[in-house]
Amino acid sequence: MPGDEFDLIEWIRRHASTSPAVVTGIGDDAAALALPPDALALVTTDMLIDGVHFRSNETSPRQIGRKAIARALSDIAAMAGDPVAVVVALAAPRDSTLTYLREIAAGAIGAASEYHAPIVGGDISVGDLPITITVTCLGAGRRGRVALRSGARPGDVVLVTGEFGGSLLGRHLEPRPRLREAQWLRDALAIHAMIDVSDGLAADAAHVARESGVAIEFQAEAIPISPDAFAMSTTSGKPALEHALHDGEDYELLFTTSPQEAHALLRRKDIPVRITQIGEVFAGSGLWLRHGGQKRLSLEPRGWRHTFGPEAG
Amino acid sequence: MPGDEFDLIEWIRRHASTSPAVVTGIGDDAAALALPPDALALVTTDMLIDGVHFRSNETSPRQIGRKAIARALSDIAAMAGDPVAVVVALAAPRDSTLTYLREIAAGAIGAASEYHAPIVGGDISVGDLPITITVTCLGAGRRGRVALRSGARPGDVVLVTGEFGGSLLGRHLEPRPRLREAQWLRDALAIHAMIDVSDGLAADAAHVARESGVAIEFQAEAIPISPDAFAMSTTSGKPALEHALHDGEDYELLFTTSPQEAHALLRRKDIPVRITQIGEVFAGSGLWLRHGGQKRLSLEPRGWRHTFGPEAG
Repeated sequence: MPGDEFDLIEWIRRHASTSPAVVTGIGDDAAALALPPDALALVTTDMLIDGVHFRSNETSPRQIGRKAIARALSDIAAMAGDPVAVVVALAAPRDSTLTYLREIAAGAIGAASEYHAPIVGGDISVGDLPITITVTCLGAGRRGRVALRSGARPGDVVLVTGEFGGSLLGRHLEPRPRLREAQWLRDALAIHAMIDVSDGLAADAAHVARESGVAIEFQAEAIPISPDAFAMSTTSGKPALEHALHDGEDYELLFTTSPQEAHALLRRKDIPVRITQIGEVFAGSGLWLRHGGQKRLSLEPRGWRHTFGPEAG
Repeated sequence: MPGDEFDLIEWIRRHASTSPAVVTGIGDDAAALALPPDALALVTTDMLIDGVHFRSNETSPRQIGRKAIARALSDIAAMAGDPVAVVVALAAPRDSTLTYLREIAAGAIGAASEYHAPIVGGDISVGDLPITITVTCLGAGRRGRVALRSGARPGDVVLVTGEFGGSLLGRHLEPRPRLREAQWLRDALAIHAMIDVSDGLAADAAHVARESGVAIEFQAEAIPISPDAFAMSTTSGKPALEHALHDGEDYELLFTTSPQEAHALLRRKDIPVRITQIGEVFAGSGLWLRHGGQKRLSLEPRGWRHTFGPEAG
């Protein structure tokens, strides 16, 4: 029995989690959700394509489903928001089996349930294309507490959660969105700007610098380097710091705040995650790296860019 | 100059419309939107794939962009909601030019602006796949006035906007979501159930019957048949009624209400669109068609289904 889209939708409908916010879930033209009173609605959409963002021959279908959800949730974390629900559009090659697609769905349902963002709708297609999953997450932001990329001010310090680099050794397959950590930070201090590090520590810091109209300077020795970055360094021949700055897919948070708030934060004993101060914000523009007390050097982001074909004529 | 994703994002950002609901639009990890007080958040996602939902060699890039937006907006109309914003995930083949993708974006921006649903975010990828666009629309629903598929009751009458069949002659390329008409209906009467007709008049009525746990019976002679259905009939050899029942992509509304409300509605002189009573709701299940005073016959929906490949072993 080959199965069709309605078998898969019915299976997802039976297995999907729910929450008190879901007024109408899977099975209607749109889902209807009750946000907390006075909340801002946050919306973010992320596409995950076989051969571009993962390789289906190296990734289990459950990991694919989990990763698609986690990437979208990480964007809600970056806004210091609370996830409310997700919708999932899945396109698959014609020879995909119902069993395989159910496994992707099971991974998505698991991650959605774990982070309290039930799947409330979607769209399923079959065609001549690689597995392509678009996850759109609806979240709730507290007015005045939503963390934007554009809020960094000269005089701020720059902090990060976790460690960076070498995600390709395996962490990129199991991203853990820093939702709880972002919510904790939102309550603990006045975040000026925040972003999740998906493109790379340098590339994402450059996004904050550009959107805020400021310069950001990293202190090289302060950057928390993942053991994976050191491991990759032995085979790549590149310094571990290079991996930490440019590999991406760390799904950690980078944020800025006042030096006073940062000082108070770093003295707390109840921090739920490693937090490290790695740099400062200055008037000006661009991204800069300082080694020890030396003169700062321009730091070029090397995040992945999708490029288009040449124009005719 | 081949261009890259950031050129396209920057172009969209410069050209996209906005609205008072947009607190933070394109350029952050997520958009932030202010819904009307006490509104329910409506969310729907729709994928449009070259070779599955359209053919890029027969469709202009502006039409592709417009259609992607219109399909999602039609789902918000079906909920009797007000569109607030859309996010667009676009994947394109590697040889796509920036010019071509800008044209798709221009079509999307045009439709989004026309229906007051500004583009507030998105995701752009390039890979070995046909043009694939996922549009997710956020809407606002009035509590107690959201029209579900599940609200039809025995004794209701079934009504539709517009005419049906033959959309392949061209109407499918320029769908016009019935947003204003749905808003007018929401204010004019108590809608019990509503759906937009994308899969086909029969298939979508069957969705309402199943979700409501009722039977729906169409009166054949009452169904408003599009001139396009008659035109297609001359070449297909099938009755025009068949085209009206099964072609799909009409993007009209089918709704149910009490006979009293329907009677009052149909006597009004200010109806903004052709509205026709085509059937009734009964206790029971399934979809039925009655020709004249004859015995009713079971009507099998023939909407498109995406089917999966065979299981191994």
